[in-house]
Amino acid sequence: MAARRVMVVKSGGEAAMEEWRACFAGCAPGLELRWWDDPATRPEEVDYALVWDPEPGRLAAMPGLRAVFGSGAGVDGIVADGDYPRHVPLVRMSIPAATERMGEFCCWAALSLLKEARRMAIAQAERRWDFVEPPHRASQRTVGIMGLGNMGARTAMMLRGIGFPVIGWSRGRKSVPGVESYAGPGEMGAFLARSDILICLLPATEETRGIINAATLARLPPGAGYIGVGRGMQQVLPDIVSALDEGRLSGAVLDVFEPEPLPADHPLWTHPRAIVTAHVASLPSRAERASAVAAAIAGFERGEPLPNLFDHARGY
Amino acid sequence: MAARRVMVVKSGGEAAMEEWRACFAGCAPGLELRWWDDPATRPEEVDYALVWDPEPGRLAAMPGLRAVFGSGAGVDGIVADGDYPRHVPLVRMSIPAATERMGEFCCWAALSLLKEARRMAIAQAERRWDFVEPPHRASQRTVGIMGLGNMGARTAMMLRGIGFPVIGWSRGRKSVPGVESYAGPGEMGAFLARSDILICLLPATEETRGIINAATLARLPPGAGYIGVGRGMQQVLPDIVSALDEGRLSGAVLDVFEPEPLPADHPLWTHPRAIVTAHVASLPSRAERASAVAAAIAGFERGEPLPNLFDHARGY
Repeated sequence: MAARRVMVVKSGGEAAMEEWRACFAGCAPGLELRWWDDPATRPEEVDYALVWDPEPGRLAAMPGLRAVFGSGAGVDGIVADGDYPRHVPLVRMSIPAATERMGEFCCWAALSLLKEARRMAIAQAERRWDFVEPPHRASQRTVGIMGLGNMGARTAMMLRGIGFPVIGWSRGRKSVPGVESYAGPGEMGAFLARSDILICLLPATEETRGIINAATLARLPPGAGYIGVGRGMQQVLPDIVSALDEGRLSGAVLDVFEPEPLPADHPLWTHPRAIVTAHVASLPSRAERASAVAAAIAGFERGEPLPNLFDHARGY
Repeated sequence: MAARRVMVVKSGGEAAMEEWRACFAGCAPGLELRWWDDPATRPEEVDYALVWDPEPGRLAAMPGLRAVFGSGAGVDGIVADGDYPRHVPLVRMSIPAATERMGEFCCWAALSLLKEARRMAIAQAERRWDFVEPPHRASQRTVGIMGLGNMGARTAMMLRGIGFPVIGWSRGRKSVPGVESYAGPGEMGAFLARSDILICLLPATEETRGIINAATLARLPPGAGYIGVGRGMQQVLPDIVSALDEGRLSGAVLDVFEPEPLPADHPLWTHPRAIVTAHVASLPSRAERASAVAAAIAGFERGEPLPNLFDHARGY
């Protein structure tokens, strides 16, 4: 029944194609998946693209392209392409499963800082019984979330359920139950001064580039913790390392870097106050993402609007 | 004003006495603290004892003893003393701060299993970018809590806030909102079969000795996780290690052992599926415990009943 359509995929490498095909087979039977660099694909036969970091100019060379799907929550790797064909709708991957996963990861990270999990992991590696009373309870550590979109709001609710007081900061003021909202550059200092644990969940825009720097960290309470789950370009990593070295930051959980992967010789890998993870905070499974993309395409082809469209003017 | 009273302390070793004295100085000015083995203390001058594991017979030799305070939630190290003077009330340390800390630790442990934190920690130690999609979300993993007392009930609420479905098992049926309650030996199998992550929060009694054994673990769903935060005597540790070796358990977070500390040559320290911590799950700070003990003594001396009395017949 369904007309044959072609979707090129660049997400997870060629090795992931088999899993992508299996995921889409059940939910989008008429959709033919092609690896991004498959030489047998003619640009003019491509209807859709599911990509993370396409080489500049490649999408513009596909004249029949009807929509582009980002394979993660951020699409900055796509809009970095100066030749991106702006008449083609760009869909951000915003699915409930990813929001849940981000909230779970942030709770794990905040509790890891609260319970000094890095110190405990080092003790385990040394086979050492490290009987130390954690100094605080969740109710004694305010978590400050930068970025109160879907993910930030859900994360705030989950953290509050554990007992953390939560405040938020964003470009415009937000209304999230139980979460005091700070807005704009003028209120950033007051927000930071109260954030015992700072979470960066901002979108990647020119305004947020390098926003986690020495000056920002200096405004946190002494001994604060930091959780980096936004994007690597937001972090001035040497400033974070210095703050950890000097103890101004008591700990950090870092999931995003620039570039990724974090180079094997980077000092953060072995830093006694840092937990390093591999950009896994909010990654939905391929099945979850395939299901969301298939549903969006089905609606689109019935004439419904595409969800979660990227706004080129706003930048997210 | 307050009459001078003497409290002997055996919790944290002699090195902890300075901190204990500082903690009690503010909240119980008339209370004189003595180290348990202070040769200057005459047994007949002791009014109170704050202890974790007193040598058998020592408490019975204090004729003026008015109450004994356990320095942790479990008092099995005290009632193991066959000569314990049963006419002297024994108070379990049950304070809200400890309940909060236990809930926080269990949330951290459940999320650590969900997110495969042990695998991530090993990757960090190897400076390896370990980009793996965690297979599940919290909503897809049912947590089964053995023991639904204050700590179990609070832990259940916090886990539900993160998104985990929660069920419970205890000797008698309990009513905790949103938590299906299984009761007694007859319902244990059905409870275990649904527990993707099992938490043992039972009290230490003869009935719970060795309850976490090969037969129990075999009834869990394949690939389940285990969190041991009750007491070491409840766990048949070689059975847990075997289940981890064979992958029937996908992971474990173990905070209690028998004996403690866990010996440095124990295979669990380096097990790729085990997180080992040093009995820190619910330890309230000394200040929190001193405050609770001081309040109980003040009430007792005004004629009020002591809270959280140990029941020798029930065993907890």
